[in-house]
Amino acid sequence: MRLPLDNDCFLRACLRQPTPHTPIWLMRQAGRYLPEYKATRAKAGNSFMALATNVQYATEVTLQPLERYALDAAILFSDILTVPDAMGLGLSFGAGEGPRFAHPVRDEAAVAALQVPDLDKLRYVFDAVTSIRHALKGRMPLIGFSGSPWTLACYMVEGAGSDDYRLVKTMLYARPDLMHRILAVNAQAVTAYLNAQIDSGAQAVMLFDSWGGVLADGAFQRFSLAYTRQVVAGLQREKDGQRIPLIVFTKGGGPWLDDIAACGADVVGLDWTVNLADARRRVGQRVALQGNLDPNVLFAPPDVVAREAVAVLDAFGRPQRADGGWDGHIFNLGHGISQYTPPEHVTALVDAVHAHSRRLRA
Amino acid sequence: MRLPLDNDCFLRACLRQPTPHTPIWLMRQAGRYLPEYKATRAKAGNSFMALATNVQYATEVTLQPLERYALDAAILFSDILTVPDAMGLGLSFGAGEGPRFAHPVRDEAAVAALQVPDLDKLRYVFDAVTSIRHALKGRMPLIGFSGSPWTLACYMVEGAGSDDYRLVKTMLYARPDLMHRILAVNAQAVTAYLNAQIDSGAQAVMLFDSWGGVLADGAFQRFSLAYTRQVVAGLQREKDGQRIPLIVFTKGGGPWLDDIAACGADVVGLDWTVNLADARRRVGQRVALQGNLDPNVLFAPPDVVAREAVAVLDAFGRPQRADGGWDGHIFNLGHGISQYTPPEHVTALVDAVHAHSRRLRA
Repeated sequence: MRLPLDNDCFLRACLRQPTPHTPIWLMRQAGRYLPEYKATRAKAGNSFMALATNVQYATEVTLQPLERYALDAAILFSDILTVPDAMGLGLSFGAGEGPRFAHPVRDEAAVAALQVPDLDKLRYVFDAVTSIRHALKGRMPLIGFSGSPWTLACYMVEGAGSDDYRLVKTMLYARPDLMHRILAVNAQAVTAYLNAQIDSGAQAVMLFDSWGGVLADGAFQRFSLAYTRQVVAGLQREKDGQRIPLIVFTKGGGPWLDDIAACGADVVGLDWTVNLADARRRVGQRVALQGNLDPNVLFAPPDVVAREAVAVLDAFGRPQRADGGWDGHIFNLGHGISQYTPPEHVTALVDAVHAHSRRLRA
Repeated sequence: MRLPLDNDCFLRACLRQPTPHTPIWLMRQAGRYLPEYKATRAKAGNSFMALATNVQYATEVTLQPLERYALDAAILFSDILTVPDAMGLGLSFGAGEGPRFAHPVRDEAAVAALQVPDLDKLRYVFDAVTSIRHALKGRMPLIGFSGSPWTLACYMVEGAGSDDYRLVKTMLYARPDLMHRILAVNAQAVTAYLNAQIDSGAQAVMLFDSWGGVLADGAFQRFSLAYTRQVVAGLQREKDGQRIPLIVFTKGGGPWLDDIAACGADVVGLDWTVNLADARRRVGQRVALQGNLDPNVLFAPPDVVAREAVAVLDAFGRPQRADGGWDGHIFNLGHGISQYTPPEHVTALVDAVHAHSRRLRA
């Protein structure tokens, strides 16, 4: 079933194999900074969920950045909160707002009622994966993804984004039994969800622990990383004889790099606060590293964008080690691309990453 | 002029000298979680600036938490943004909002016009310091403070708080010359401001780099820490034969602990993401450490608050080293106390810190 890819740089870098250049993709690369995305979204009534649940639209917007830029991977167009939505929490996106749940999980009864959702409610995601995979025609790999158990729990308890995570942390400290129950359900659901994405055609998967970094040292290990490990333990890691790389990205996870690198992921995603040279020295022979340009760099003129991209590549250094082995680097931003990014600055970024990373290998 | 203090635990811990217990104070300890604070604020027309600029009110609210709790230090009641306000940017606090500047600094002309303010415009702060110092009657030391040059610049350019720091980071990357000019002015102003607080009676000073942690590795060192160093270089560190300890607190600064510890401060403040045992091992013989309980712990019942406080103390360990020397630990939260904190939970915290830290020394 698996045909060779035209461009397998991304998968090879995930597995710390030689590549002719450093692959690059961008978190939220299909998104509001692209006029063509806004056009498709307008067709879908300007509703994010209408876009995400329509296989044709989801396929269309996933491919848009690949037409414009020489990116090395596609990522499923979806949201990290589809799983709690399927649990019945009622996800919506208000105009100009972030996500919101109609039925947040805040008391013992709501926690007790929580169940791993029927995967059939997420059929639209799996259908989108299959559709995108076909539409890609083997040009490059497709990444599937989910929010991490902890990050889902943050939204499920808070009901929306938060400045201080007061509600979810109050539950964590005051009723750890309830929090552990939510996280256990989430871990099971996320495992099944990612495995179904892999069955549908995802060639790599990523766990977004977007809010792991708000936890205290110790709490992070018990309430986020422990459940990431549960997901890792249940994931299929091979499909049709091919390794399915797993990327774990914890925003603000720099302090726990060694712990995260030991969780069983193939790749650790880093935000811009992390020194990439230091990270490579510490864990680069155990995992590949993904990151870590500050998305705000993309507001600067193209020559500055190129210079900062070179600085990130140089911080990682030549992927070939002195002993002849290879360490893996996948270029990315340290968080999602901003909706205010000038699209032509992304061209400068992708070109600089490809050109300079080829020079580094020469 | 300097009389002995009834309780000098805080100053001694800052200087890594023996203390009978671990001193504790809380960032924003005089604040909205206290009913008596709200009562005084109501007298001042519910205006934060009316409170802060009135010497009698500022003194009153500074002392309120000391009447309620066995805290080991007082901190001036003021705001980190008084300096840019004195520069003419027009600080205000809307109801239920954060701070806002009427005249943000966003273009070349505004940056060129920026000047170190006449310190006379900040006379209300220095008068408050002197008044509080007298009102304390030597019970415990008084801490003065300022925002760091970078953190002030964030607010000065954004004009308010921000989710993504897009405006200030765009200037940083696109026009670093403008950003360096703002930071140089800020560093001069902050130095003069803190020196005047020391002259007025502050017995320790703290730099709040609340937004240092949003910078990329490398950018943090060039745009935040470099200007913290400029402040350090210009500060008077002794007054009347007594050392004036300097605390530098960078929220999200964990990745740069070694750099920060080398900036010349006596104390490094840590947020809750930092492993205190690891931090002590790395820098504890060069600086004292302050922190680092997650403020959200205070929403849990008192027995949980006490248990989590013990965990922080145990993470630092006995301050006496095996070689007979002492390392310094000042207990604090990892950020300001929340306005939603139940006041009686703070009693549980302070008592637990004092009781357990005495046990640790036994």
